[in-house]
Amino acid sequence: MKRVSILGATGSIGQNTLDLIRRDRSGYKVVALTGGRNIAQLASDAIEFQAQVVVTAHENLLPDLRDALKGSNVEAAAGKSALIESASRPTDWTMSAIVGIAGLEPGLAAMQNGHTLALANKESLVTAGKLLMQTADKQGVRILPVDSEHSAIFQALVGEDRKSVDRVIITASGGAFRDWPIDELDNATVAQASAHPNWDMGQRITIDSASMFNKALEVLEAKEFFGFSPDQIEVLVHPESIVHAMVGFCDGGLMAHVGPPDMRHAIGYALHWPDRRKLPLERLDLAQIGSLNFQTPDPVRYPALDLARQVMAEGGLSGTVFNAAKERALDHFIEGRIGFMDMHAYVSAALDQTHAQTGAEFTLETVHHVDHVTRQHIDQMIDHRAG
Amino acid sequence: MKRVSILGATGSIGQNTLDLIRRDRSGYKVVALTGGRNIAQLASDAIEFQAQVVVTAHENLLPDLRDALKGSNVEAAAGKSALIESASRPTDWTMSAIVGIAGLEPGLAAMQNGHTLALANKESLVTAGKLLMQTADKQGVRILPVDSEHSAIFQALVGEDRKSVDRVIITASGGAFRDWPIDELDNATVAQASAHPNWDMGQRITIDSASMFNKALEVLEAKEFFGFSPDQIEVLVHPESIVHAMVGFCDGGLMAHVGPPDMRHAIGYALHWPDRRKLPLERLDLAQIGSLNFQTPDPVRYPALDLARQVMAEGGLSGTVFNAAKERALDHFIEGRIGFMDMHAYVSAALDQTHAQTGAEFTLETVHHVDHVTRQHIDQMIDHRAG
Repeated sequence: MKRVSILGATGSIGQNTLDLIRRDRSGYKVVALTGGRNIAQLASDAIEFQAQVVVTAHENLLPDLRDALKGSNVEAAAGKSALIESASRPTDWTMSAIVGIAGLEPGLAAMQNGHTLALANKESLVTAGKLLMQTADKQGVRILPVDSEHSAIFQALVGEDRKSVDRVIITASGGAFRDWPIDELDNATVAQASAHPNWDMGQRITIDSASMFNKALEVLEAKEFFGFSPDQIEVLVHPESIVHAMVGFCDGGLMAHVGPPDMRHAIGYALHWPDRRKLPLERLDLAQIGSLNFQTPDPVRYPALDLARQVMAEGGLSGTVFNAAKERALDHFIEGRIGFMDMHAYVSAALDQTHAQTGAEFTLETVHHVDHVTRQHIDQMIDHRAG
Repeated sequence: MKRVSILGATGSIGQNTLDLIRRDRSGYKVVALTGGRNIAQLASDAIEFQAQVVVTAHENLLPDLRDALKGSNVEAAAGKSALIESASRPTDWTMSAIVGIAGLEPGLAAMQNGHTLALANKESLVTAGKLLMQTADKQGVRILPVDSEHSAIFQALVGEDRKSVDRVIITASGGAFRDWPIDELDNATVAQASAHPNWDMGQRITIDSASMFNKALEVLEAKEFFGFSPDQIEVLVHPESIVHAMVGFCDGGLMAHVGPPDMRHAIGYALHWPDRRKLPLERLDLAQIGSLNFQTPDPVRYPALDLARQVMAEGGLSGTVFNAAKERALDHFIEGRIGFMDMHAYVSAALDQTHAQTGAEFTLETVHHVDHVTRQHIDQMIDHRAG
């Protein structure tokens, strides 16, 4: 019986994790489930899986959560410290799937208590990769990547010597605007940006796919998690989303991970690692798919990729700046205050104007400080323009 | 310093092996080089690499070989027993690249003397897979596959549990006649069948690519070498020859080996295994290639694949029949006595008429007997038709 906690249980990754656990109920004991505002889902999952504790990030929703749990034995709690406390409870495996920088501290708490961390929260790595990797080293715990691309790289490296790696190729679907005329991108709406051609994911990550900010984050993740050098990391547009990533070796061969675009693969791989077990995935029929296409991403259409290169070159806390600026610019885009192509312009300005901070010390405090200051900076720039 | 022998040194695989060794001369001591009628090449390679012994399969060519070696210290020999004696001399690594069933005994001799066997001679596995695998087990020696497809499978299995394999997909270029109208195949000439779209190989294997007898042999090899069950082995036409094979796992993911169509990859992988070392391969540019295509092979165009299924279903010595019938039918096609599509008809007839032999005991003697009888049978059928 594997003890598991799911941080961010009501999101797309969390729900898919529960889907896999539901298929083998007797194999798992659910310790903690955490979520945000979707109290009904959170409570119903907690009751179904007989969780030990369930936590909402929002203290004002605790009464609602208690109400929804009435008649069950599930313990309820709310707020940041409850989140961290629940993440610290003993498990064998913890899924870190809270979206955004909010996922950082609960993930660290899980690792500090010796849990294997399945990491879907890409912002943790981008914004504080050094902290995360150092914690893993110090605690002797394993981080298992849950992003499809990083799971693909991880799988391609099984049994291989890291020193023989020449390059990695991360694929990108190209998102909702892959085939749009570039001069129409300025007018892209939130609804248009929220429709992904291949993957069924949350709204924020879908918009980040259209802008390739998501891929930029993944490039940074790959650098932090695997320790590749920036010039080893390539991105290719691959509209079919069937080849998730490839690792090229010094002998000229590449190992590619190929599979249907279903995030349950990467989740299941992390859940069962080092074994592979049967998963409810479609059996890929390549003859039916017919053709797998690859293109070099257009830097004019996807300027976020060059920003990722800039972040890798600068190092220090520039990943924190990048992530915070991107998150806030995305908020403003979703709220209709800035256009689709404005997002990268603001992130770029934030990166250019925070050079001084890249020498700062790398602690949880400096990460939070730079995160906070960058968000303010983005807000001020946008307010200034609006005013 | 790695001691190596190359059985079949003057063929395409042998020459490419020497090309890799030439790039790191101080790393290798060449023990034996063997070949057939290309005495000039054989002698010049033996002198260049300061081989201990060089052997031609043809006793009548020994004087020529001695002449060509004049002034060197290389020992010369000829004939079958000299071939086997030279294959038995101590090495760390022996390349088995003699074409056809003639490669079987020298390969077995190398294994019986404890050499790691790099196996390019697919007929050994097809015709006497059980003998080969039993010898490997008994001697505790390793067979490393050198066919691109099997090297690809081997690489995809690194670090994986064989029990988690669901299927393997072997790709096929489709050969010279992939896009020909089917009703014109009857009139295909030897010259037309000898032009491969992607790979630069010998004439016989190139014709076997056009007919997919080569792929049929590879399916049988995959069964013998990896122990997959027949229904786990799929074939896909992939005109670009960039994805060499894929292994599908029980979790729905597939690991694919991707690389330029250059046989030095598989040779180099076997030469350096378990390490990977830099090889003189083109660095693959997938964006430039643009598109990788996959199709189900048409059983009317490529009837050899169904014959491979028949062989797997029958077991016993039917692989020996298949290989011998194919080799002899190919001889007759090259000699202009039968048409391109007649080859599979004769192989099919040979398989149908030798059911009784599939229960025979599996020894070197029975293999040779069935091989001999099948070749005679093919000759008789063709003579009978001609007469």
